[in-house]
Amino acid sequence: MYSEKVMDHFTNPRNVGEIPDADGVGQVGNPVCGDIMKIYIKVKDNIIEDIKFKTFGCGAAIATSSMVTELVKGKTLEEAMQVSNKQVAEALDGLPPQKMHCSNLAADALHAAIQDYLSKK
Amino acid sequence: MYSEKVMDHFTNPRNVGEIPDADGVGQVGNPVCGDIMKIYIKVKDNIIEDIKFKTFGCGAAIATSSMVTELVKGKTLEEAMQVSNKQVAEALDGLPPQKMHCSNLAADALHAAIQDYLSKK
Ligand code: FES
Repeated sequence: MYSEKVMDHFTNPRNVGEIPDADGVGQVGNPVCGDIMKIYIKVKDNIIEDIKFKTFGCGAAIATSSMVTELVKGKTLEEAMQVSNKQVAEALDGLPPQKMHCSNLAADALHAAIQDYLSKK
Repeated sequence: MYSEKVMDHFTNPRNVGEIPDADGVGQVGNPVCGDIMKIYIKVKDNIIEDIKFKTFGCGAAIATSSMVTELVKGKTLEEAMQVSNKQVAEALDGLPPQKMHCSNLAADALHAAIQDYLSKK
């Protein structure tokens, strides 16, 4: 049912945690299951220097968040804004259709974190 | 939103894994989010000697399964059959209402594993 990459990021997620002095924080909820995804970013010279996520969500939510943090770390805010839920799912070699609402949390929370940073500037 | 016990069992779950030569295996699916819970038991002299679980489910599903395995390890099959979803939620100091469908997986999968064992005997 799940690709090897999904299982890898689920059982060994990257960048889990909080950034207490984050420059931007994004939070989105999953309307289907009520789970919440939170992403913290640290920005310097328009670059995402550090990024962490926290969720109580399922394996698909954990795997996609882990992947999205790896994809955008070190990237510019513009590049990070362009990362789509579809690209994250593709980077994981796909996700089951009934898990798409879980996997959409990751990029949405990232974009919310960037918007939070920009609105504070 | 979540009790300390829930967070403890989510971040440090007990008895995660598979039992390759299990005496009984129970599997149930979550109709809301599509997640699956699997419980393996090893039985000797009517006692649950070993128990492990595997899920791709959310934090509530992980915490309740971890708790249910602790509650029934070393208990008789009859005692384990009587453990209810409600008791597991109470042992965790409660769960948010929108997470009840996730937490119901654990005791259901346990009972399915016991039934599997009894049917094979
Ligand atoms: S089931 Fe809640 S995030 Fe996937």
